[in-house]
Amino acid sequence: MSGESKAGPSVRMVPEGDDRERLVCPDCGHVHYENPKITVGTVCTWEDKLLLCRRAIEPCSGLWTIPAGYLEENETTVEGAAREVWEEACVQVQMGGLFGIYEIPHISQIYMIYRARMTTADCAPGPESADAALFSWDDVPWEELAFPSVSWALEEFRANPDGGIRVKVHGRDF
Amino acid sequence: MSGESKAGPSVRMVPEGDDRERLVCPDCGHVHYENPKITVGTVCTWEDKLLLCRRAIEPCSGLWTIPAGYLEENETTVEGAAREVWEEACVQVQMGGLFGIYEIPHISQIYMIYRARMTTADCAPGPESADAALFSWDDVPWEELAFPSVSWALEEFRANPDGGIRVKVHGRDF
Repeated sequence: MSGESKAGPSVRMVPEGDDRERLVCPDCGHVHYENPKITVGTVCTWEDKLLLCRRAIEPCSGLWTIPAGYLEENETTVEGAAREVWEEACVQVQMGGLFGIYEIPHISQIYMIYRARMTTADCAPGPESADAALFSWDDVPWEELAFPSVSWALEEFRANPDGGIRVKVHGRDF
Repeated sequence: MSGESKAGPSVRMVPEGDDRERLVCPDCGHVHYENPKITVGTVCTWEDKLLLCRRAIEPCSGLWTIPAGYLEENETTVEGAAREVWEEACVQVQMGGLFGIYEIPHISQIYMIYRARMTTADCAPGPESADAALFSWDDVPWEELAFPSVSWALEEFRANPDGGIRVKVHGRDF
């Protein structure tokens, strides 16, 4: 491994046999195929309260979110959602069903949001969180939520606590 | 761009600040973050027939599939599904709803399957297809389908032509 920083995939071109531009590395020729990423998140409840984490990292450091993050390789969405709850809030959960799919095409992200019940009331901030706490619905900091998807998920969960799956594309219902 | 083929991201190591191994390029140091990919597909109908394409490329060249392929950047899943129908079968469709989500974690793929109505009965193989044709349910080549996800989608569509969204993880219902 060279110690000096080189280009990485930085040249935009159409690889042979492809039909759209990709980023190609001028040093090694590697084609970087970028595809939309899945973010898995969970609305976790303990009795009539729900779990939020205050972000300790950018983007939106200091704002509140449900536990959520990128799905990793060889992981199911429900496994990834439970992993993020553990990593961000040190909480063990009994996972429930998928209830929201939120597409945000301009940033190539798809959120898949689950419901879950906490197995105890204990929670604590993980490395990427500044705080983790239980909130009653009256105390949810709606003006300090990190992302629109967090508002969509909480509103959907509150409106349909036992409902089916709702698909939204950037906030519009489908 | 060097004409000779070099390594690309080929060294497995844990990058600084990360918690799992990624592929890193020994030539340029680029970290290749690989995440699960979304495949979008569509069960297209014309009257009481459905559209299948015979694959002209590996894997499973020669076998039949519904039009499907990787979701691209800045595309919604319904747009990607309609694009694949056009690319693989030269068919314009009126897209309907999402009805199946099939997770296959061991290959890090998630299928999202839509229903659609063809606007005419015309179809023709695109560059990646050897054939495109309409089948009645009695004539579906069940033993020559390319992937399990194609069987799952067709069975689900037939069982619940107007139903909601079903989530399966590698064939198991959730």
